Amino acid sequence: MSSTATRTPVAAEIDQWLSRFDEALARDDAAAASEMFAPESFWRDLVAFTWNIKTVEAPGGVQDMLEHTLARTKPRGWRVTEEPTSADGVGEAWLEFETEVGRGSGHLRLVDGKAWTLLTALDELKGYEQSLGPRRPKGVEHGANPDRHTWLEDRRREAEESGFATQPYAVIVGGGQGGIALGARLRQLDVPAIIIERNARPGDSWRKRYKSLCLHDPVWYDHLPYVKFPPNWPVFSPKDKIADWLEMYTRVMELNYWGSTTAKHARYDERAGEWTLLVEREGEEITLRPKQLVMATGMSGRPQTPRFPGAERFKGDQHHSSAHPGPDAYRGKRAVVIGSNNSAHDICAALWEHGADVTMVQRSSTHVVRSDTLMDIALGALYSEEAVAGGMTTEKADMTFASIPYRIMADLQIPVYEQIRERDADFYRRLEAAGFQHDWGEDGSGLFMKYLRRASGYYIDVGASELVANGEIKLQPGQVDHLTEDAVVMADGTELPADLVVYATGYESMNGFVADLISPEVADKVGRVWGLGSGTTKDPGPWEGEQRNMWKPTQQEGLWFHGGNLHQSRHYSLYLALQLKARAEGIDTPVYGLQEVHHTR
Amino acid sequence: MSSTATRTPVAAEIDQWLSRFDEALARDDAAAASEMFAPESFWRDLVAFTWNIKTVEAPGGVQDMLEHTLARTKPRGWRVTEEPTSADGVGEAWLEFETEVGRGSGHLRLVDGKAWTLLTALDELKGYEQSLGPRRPKGVEHGANPDRHTWLEDRRREAEESGFATQPYAVIVGGGQGGIALGARLRQLDVPAIIIERNARPGDSWRKRYKSLCLHDPVWYDHLPYVKFPPNWPVFSPKDKIADWLEMYTRVMELNYWGSTTAKHARYDERAGEWTLLVEREGEEITLRPKQLVMATGMSGRPQTPRFPGAERFKGDQHHSSAHPGPDAYRGKRAVVIGSNNSAHDICAALWEHGADVTMVQRSSTHVVRSDTLMDIALGALYSEEAVAGGMTTEKADMTFASIPYRIMADLQIPVYEQIRERDADFYRRLEAAGFQHDWGEDGSGLFMKYLRRASGYYIDVGASELVANGEIKLQPGQVDHLTEDAVVMADGTELPADLVVYATGYESMNGFVADLISPEVADKVGRVWGLGSGTTKDPGPWEGEQRNMWKPTQQEGLWFHGGNLHQSRHYSLYLALQLKARAEGIDTPVYGLQEVHHTR
Repeated sequence: MSSTATRTPVAAEIDQWLSRFDEALARDDAAAASEMFAPESFWRDLVAFTWNIKTVEAPGGVQDMLEHTLARTKPRGWRVTEEPTSADGVGEAWLEFETEVGRGSGHLRLVDGKAWTLLTALDELKGYEQSLGPRRPKGVEHGANPDRHTWLEDRRREAEESGFATQPYAVIVGGGQGGIALGARLRQLDVPAIIIERNARPGDSWRKRYKSLCLHDPVWYDHLPYVKFPPNWPVFSPKDKIADWLEMYTRVMELNYWGSTTAKHARYDERAGEWTLLVEREGEEITLRPKQLVMATGMSGRPQTPRFPGAERFKGDQHHSSAHPGPDAYRGKRAVVIGSNNSAHDICAALWEHGADVTMVQRSSTHVVRSDTLMDIALGALYSEEAVAGGMTTEKADMTFASIPYRIMADLQIPVYEQIRERDADFYRRLEAAGFQHDWGEDGSGLFMKYLRRASGYYIDVGASELVANGEIKLQPGQVDHLTEDAVVMADGTELPADLVVYATGYESMNGFVADLISPEVADKVGRVWGLGSGTTKDPGPWEGEQRNMWKPTQQEGLWFHGGNLHQSRHYSLYLALQLKARAEGIDTPVYGLQEVHHTR
Repeated sequence: MSSTATRTPVAAEIDQWLSRFDEALARDDAAAASEMFAPESFWRDLVAFTWNIKTVEAPGGVQDMLEHTLARTKPRGWRVTEEPTSADGVGEAWLEFETEVGRGSGHLRLVDGKAWTLLTALDELKGYEQSLGPRRPKGVEHGANPDRHTWLEDRRREAEESGFATQPYAVIVGGGQGGIALGARLRQLDVPAIIIERNARPGDSWRKRYKSLCLHDPVWYDHLPYVKFPPNWPVFSPKDKIADWLEMYTRVMELNYWGSTTAKHARYDERAGEWTLLVEREGEEITLRPKQLVMATGMSGRPQTPRFPGAERFKGDQHHSSAHPGPDAYRGKRAVVIGSNNSAHDICAALWEHGADVTMVQRSSTHVVRSDTLMDIALGALYSEEAVAGGMTTEKADMTFASIPYRIMADLQIPVYEQIRERDADFYRRLEAAGFQHDWGEDGSGLFMKYLRRASGYYIDVGASELVANGEIKLQPGQVDHLTEDAVVMADGTELPADLVVYATGYESMNGFVADLISPEVADKVGRVWGLGSGTTKDPGPWEGEQRNMWKPTQQEGLWFHGGNLHQSRHYSLYLALQLKARAEGIDTPVYGLQEVHHTR
């Protein structure tokens, strides 16, 4: 980067912008720095400036943010880390910088000499760098030492004392992939933590689900932090295989994982600044006193089951999709599956494969994308074998994804789904001809935006849609009115005889757990979890600009939410872990732009 | 590689050599090809030409090998895979090529236009490529299929049927890191295999050893195939941590691992070309009928315990180092440790740390190298954080190591140990002043050659030598004459009062197992395992050029030996697995240069 003489025009332009930006920040000139942003522009900050996950917009938003954060952040040392690129008039650069307390990296998009998007992300806290690579532990203390403990002795002592003789700084409620990923990050940052999980073993939340379940996201998207899946790992991981991986990961990452443990009640003591958390571990009640409480109970944590009149009279089997044992017992039986999203499709297909007579009740329209198409068109550039071969690392893919502000993401997604609509036109025609109510999201922005906005309303097709299209899976539109002893009766009077009813009706907001575990008051104070405030179905406005309450401070001190898909768990666990570490070490963490609450649950 | 106009001189020279070599091989001209080798030269082949692990020397050796292998190998497509380099008059290039049945890679050193060393290694068999990366399994079969099985169902069925309804093609006796690494390779090559292990769980062979044990090789040297240790893994892995890793690895790689299983008897049926192997699994006798039997019982598999007169009268504790429970029970006790190699030092230091009175009995001289020095000077270029940062992959490091013929390795090692001797001169002076008998190997070639020749006679110092030097660990030279009720008595009459005697006296050749498991006749037919035939202590000549009987065909059809340190297990498991795969698929595998037997055990 030193020989500016040979720089490309875009590199020179970015160097110049960065150097002016650096100067403006150095002299605490928020106004000058903000003027370097385009009228439509976005600065997304992951913890580095705001101790928050926050996107500010336009020069005004930038200026306000800087006025509140610049003096103590003291950002400096901005430089590009690889040769900038340019396409369609947009210059792009990968950056690094440091602040008073940490080192960060980022990404800049420059248009006509002004910033269009800027991402700044905290990578590590100075003095608390992770023990990785060149900093990895030695593992054995060479020399002779009469006070030596072995690794096993230390590990056992910690596991025995944690929660009893010593209190964890953080407790993570929920030991699925989210809790486990965060637990690994905290372990690497030396933040004492316990993960509590109602199931006995890590991975059980996968093992217990319907037997045909596989991850719908491909392997390149699913890596956990630190330990990548090996090159023989399947593209779509079967549920029991991912469960085994999570179990081994928990062990080799040395997490304090309390299985068969239920969180019963939590109360925050504002004065002491700590939680009193009552848990039941294998029948024994234990009180934990962590400073921080993280809810990682999952997007799919708490089943949402409609209560239809007559359900208590129904003589067949009925259960929520999360409790569906799989199709084996239902050969030759009549199954009615309520719902038309991912689980509903998977369960219908598996029942059909096992010779059940299957009806899917579609209560509202669903967005469907074929898995192969999604991989090729939507994910391929960042998460695929080709991307890996082209030098794309998981970390860089995550940062690339993070560099796109949510405000403009929908607009960028629309053409992707237009392309998908064209490529698979015949598929959609046949699906709709069969009576399937299909949508592309209210603004045509497709699957990923639906996920970010409401975490529901779609199916990644791995084969069930063909069965719907050709009528092998029968389709019943409309609302359920009631159940009888042996049938589901629709609002229009249609009777669907049934030996089995599966409620593939989704999950409640994570905040529902908070109401139960802490109090309805705290749940309401914290407000709705997930969604962007897009003003679309199930994601009411106003616009938030980030996922509500996820991975960042909430209105309740000491209460955090973690989760999402494997990609989000992996990437955002870093920023949540850094926020917790900073607090554990007494680093000042004034939060800029703490979100307001507009919706309780 | 296309624009030859811009090639460096060495690149042009290598291109020219390769192209002439290719032409000579293509026209089956063994004489012409062999004339392209220097008078002192070596061609090391890992399975690609010889279906053996074989080094031939000088043009004559090359010509003989080619005359026997060229016609059916049909090597072709030789090309360099990266820009060749040159130093001290030696041009070096990384190569790839293919044969009639496979694809290979290699390495060439050229001096004055002639080959000094050539390495050729088989990477994969055509039509049987491993399912890795772009070939990874999909994990789920999209579409609807009434005959669908889930991953878990298939995995369980295989585990239940293997050894009963179906017979494994190969059985690996010994489920330590060697057996596990080979098992993983075979799984990826779709060769049905069972690993049998007397301990209950993978890793137990580590868990059961003395509690202070850590790997003496650093993490970069120790990776298993397919799944690398994560960046937080300690440099020197504590034994229980590596044990956990092996256990998780066995599970996620889906190995058929029979714990608590002992091999009781094996007999080869020449006519059927298969083994009858009787095993006892958790008390139940089972007969297995594999085509191939692999002994992976380990260099440290069978304790070698001297029988001293009076041992039966000794009233304290006495055990082999492999059975030593650790120091906890011996605080304030008098311990005599017989031996002065790795285990002896580790055990002495741990006993001293726990307040025992410790005497080390040195029966013969030992080579000591300080761990830090070894890492810096001997391993650093290939296996270190700096090597990784410089772009060195584990695979390339392994191939670099493999490219050095054993014949010249000692000469290349001597200056390394001269450098070590100088750097740590003060350390060696103090050690010898304390009466420690130190050597550098008979020819001054140091630790790694001792390992390759006899797998004993050294200590990688992680602290115990300081205790020896300053007299905290007492040193007693000489031979043991007998034991009394409470002492070890030396040949010179010195009496060493003892509450504990530890026999840190090493392990038998793997062939000892063959004598027990199969028959003494087969053991003698196969001959000694390990060693190069260097004509040095415990490694009698004649020169073999490769490790005896390791990872390659033996004089007993269907009988193989696998093992070594983690580096060797990792790298050579590939070549052993390819040899087994070729046989499983009926590919013709005529062995060139099957080793002769000069020593029975």
